[in-house]
Amino acid sequence: MIEIDSRKQTEVTDITSSVERELASSNVQSGICLIYTLHTTTGITINEAEGDLMQDIVRLLDTIVPAGAGYRHDRSDGNAHAHLRAVLIGNSAVIPIERGTLVLGTWQRILFIEQDGPRHRRVYVKAISD
Amino acid sequence: MIEIDSRKQTEVTDITSSVERELASSNVQSGICLIYTLHTTTGITINEAEGDLMQDIVRLLDTIVPAGAGYRHDRSDGNAHAHLRAVLIGNSAVIPIERGTLVLGTWQRILFIEQDGPRHRRVYVKAISD
Amino acid sequence: MIEIDSRKQTEVTDITSSVERELASSNVQSGICLIYTLHTTTGITINEAEGDLMQDIVRLLDTIVPAGAGYRHDRSDGNAHAHLRAVLIGNSAVIPIERGTLVLGTWQRILFIEQDGPRHRRVYVKAISD
Repeated sequence: MIEIDSRKQTEVTDITSSVERELASSNVQSGICLIYTLHTTTGITINEAEGDLMQDIVRLLDTIVPAGAGYRHDRSDGNAHAHLRAVLIGNSAVIPIERGTLVLGTWQRILFIEQDGPRHRRVYVKAISD
Repeated sequence: MIEIDSRKQTEVTDITSSVERELASSNVQSGICLIYTLHTTTGITINEAEGDLMQDIVRLLDTIVPAGAGYRHDRSDGNAHAHLRAVLIGNSAVIPIERGTLVLGTWQRILFIEQDGPRHRRVYVKAISD
Repeated sequence: MIEIDSRKQTEVTDITSSVERELASSNVQSGICLIYTLHTTTGITINEAEGDLMQDIVRLLDTIVPAGAGYRHDRSDGNAHAHLRAVLIGNSAVIPIERGTLVLGTWQRILFIEQDGPRHRRVYVKAISD
């Protein structure tokens, strides 16, 4: 399990190193690795961990799913936009494992997308042998 | 296999209990569970099964991908918007399994998203042991 | 590994036959198959491989995430829109395997979505036995 303390309401964090540490302790040499956030207002994606791009991701979500746009869920809880953004991003990634390490392309990193922070968050990592 | 008879053109259904029943019959104690819709105009996501939010998901998809917005596929079949929404949502979820049960966070439920109902639908459940 | 030479800046390609060939060489009879692009400006989705619909997917992404819309990443590299579209689509699909073949619904095909071509691209295929 990876523990994350997000610091802003919306932010993107590179969690690749943490996932690699979890994978190392699993001793799986060949298979797949599931990275799975346990929350409904966060997402997981695989992309480049370039600072400007990580801000662009936040701004894109603000544009496509603006906060407070008359959502019904906001009548009971003010974070409908965070749930809806999580639905678009998805809550997990699955990555191949070879020789005990993640198969990542040159620019690929595992990004955790916070949409309702700051909060304490948990991301489950599960390695499966083939 | 889970069988679903959707009742509306667009609706969100909580299928968590059905997935848990399928998982129980697999006898997998530790691993991952794939939930996979066999259709191209439906989606699977993991989020909160709160009634207002489930309506917000439908309305968000209506806004981002409106029906009948000049799609080419509508010249042969009138459901291009349903396909396109399915592409954005994704057709599967993968969930960790521990002690024979799904690892779900406090608010996480498995949601089936119908976009071209009412129809008879099938969702495949496959458990893999680690 | 599947090798793809995309021919346009944005295009959708049906790679189902290539994935099936990779799967056949794995000898997995029952399990799941991960299809995983190694790039951050491409996506993988499962939907109908109908020509008009494949163009609709490209046009939808153009509409939701227009190129050159003031992205910060464009100050260093002109392809922010391609990264952002990849985040929305996702970079992988997971499909059940039964009797050595992919479990696909009537209209389901595996689609590779190029957003920053033309380029040489690689898609990893990993089969896991249950």
